[in-house]
Amino acid sequence: MKQFKKVCIVGVGLIGGSLALALKKAGIARTIVGVGHRNLSLKKAIELGAIDKGFLEFRKGISRADLVVLATPVATILKYLERDFSSLEEGALITDTGSTKKEIVKRAELSLPPSLCFVGGHPIAGSEKRGVEAAAANLFKEKIVVLARTSRTKQRALQMIKELWESVGAKPEILSPEQHDRIVAYFSHLPHLTAVALVKTVKESLRGGNLSFAGSGFKDTTRIAAGAPHLWRDIFSANADEILSALLNFKKSLNAIEKLIKRKDWEELKNQLQGVKHFREQI
Amino acid sequence: MKQFKKVCIVGVGLIGGSLALALKKAGIARTIVGVGHRNLSLKKAIELGAIDKGFLEFRKGISRADLVVLATPVATILKYLERDFSSLEEGALITDTGSTKKEIVKRAELSLPPSLCFVGGHPIAGSEKRGVEAAAANLFKEKIVVLARTSRTKQRALQMIKELWESVGAKPEILSPEQHDRIVAYFSHLPHLTAVALVKTVKESLRGGNLSFAGSGFKDTTRIAAGAPHLWRDIFSANADEILSALLNFKKSLNAIEKLIKRKDWEELKNQLQGVKHFREQI
Repeated sequence: MKQFKKVCIVGVGLIGGSLALALKKAGIARTIVGVGHRNLSLKKAIELGAIDKGFLEFRKGISRADLVVLATPVATILKYLERDFSSLEEGALITDTGSTKKEIVKRAELSLPPSLCFVGGHPIAGSEKRGVEAAAANLFKEKIVVLARTSRTKQRALQMIKELWESVGAKPEILSPEQHDRIVAYFSHLPHLTAVALVKTVKESLRGGNLSFAGSGFKDTTRIAAGAPHLWRDIFSANADEILSALLNFKKSLNAIEKLIKRKDWEELKNQLQGVKHFREQI
Repeated sequence: MKQFKKVCIVGVGLIGGSLALALKKAGIARTIVGVGHRNLSLKKAIELGAIDKGFLEFRKGISRADLVVLATPVATILKYLERDFSSLEEGALITDTGSTKKEIVKRAELSLPPSLCFVGGHPIAGSEKRGVEAAAANLFKEKIVVLARTSRTKQRALQMIKELWESVGAKPEILSPEQHDRIVAYFSHLPHLTAVALVKTVKESLRGGNLSFAGSGFKDTTRIAAGAPHLWRDIFSANADEILSALLNFKKSLNAIEKLIKRKDWEELKNQLQGVKHFREQI
């Protein structure tokens, strides 16, 4: 596959840092630079060998890059897409790693100069940890990366971003932004919402309770509720419609189970638990 | 503390087997026997050094024991409590490890001869794994064990069961059966129910979807939904009222979050996420 002359990673955290390390390892970027808003993280990223050079100024960082990866939280990606990309050469690629796609792709198609090629992306990979310190070249190995295709996506650009992710061991899947946002509403945003609601319920109904009663089941089920509030606020905002629709279906499932308990229909409850167990074990 | 002449563990699985190993290690039982319904597990328990002898017949196993521990699933404990305990000497102790307490303690107080001392118990410890192969002497280390006290509980018996659990490193907490069942409804049964409902929702709303989109958040949140259906049916049945009441409060939490999303009140949503994160991090 093509070697990039200059890759600019905007946001050198867990995802951006890992991608930088992985691209270095795959040897498909001559230079990798990072853009960040803290000197310390950029320094750290250089020390870890993720980037060759760091910039606090976006404009300087992206200058003459042939690939720009926006690897910040969703709300920041939306802001960056309105910045000036005119220093990029015609045909330069821009992609992102944001957790939602509809709003980001729409913003990109509205704001970016038509001479540039945008392909939205979302690696389904991550960790509790944040920051470049937690970055790892193998973070994307065998992980799904959704690439968002619209009627305006250029086939050549899509192919190049696909090969980029394949070169770091990921498995690209091409979906429309709408399909992506619907799927992550169910697999990521709804589970987050239910974990938050569970903790909120315990907090309010047991008046703090004795937290030592929390066993491994409760811990697993609510681990994600400790995620960064501002990031999740932005995700809920960017994907509100799909999340509300998934929540509606979740409440239907809850009500169906509640009905079985109220009716004391234990055999049907067991059948439902069996079906769920079977499905869950396929993951 | 007192040494027991003969401890009989009924149900030598993960919990019963671990307790047997731990009691051996603590050296407070001269003999430990097991009762099970499969020769193979009893043999395995002997090989692992958990029990000295195994019995398929309950009556033979408990004969002349001064401590009987019912360590089977809830529904089976309820059945065992109606068996004949007349071979036990006056003052012999009976306890259990079941996940609910109200029904079990009530059954014990109704069925057992008054010459015997019953104290209901529930160690908040466990694992995905089942069976004596997964047993470990340190399973209860630093783990809460709830002991259920009622107006009919004998202080001496309670004290002895308390010391028993302390001798294997656990931290006993004395609650009423009602308090216990309310707390586990929130910390264990409601999380199970929401995990099941989440998997059911994905299964039905995404028509199977592509399971490779399930990231670590979804996996953590729904891990317990793969629990044994018949065990969970019995728990839902034994603790139905508390679970329905917890579910009602959970739905209130869900609706409160839904309202913030509908209202696009992102700052209040962030505040709520912050409060939940703070509470979750205390666990």
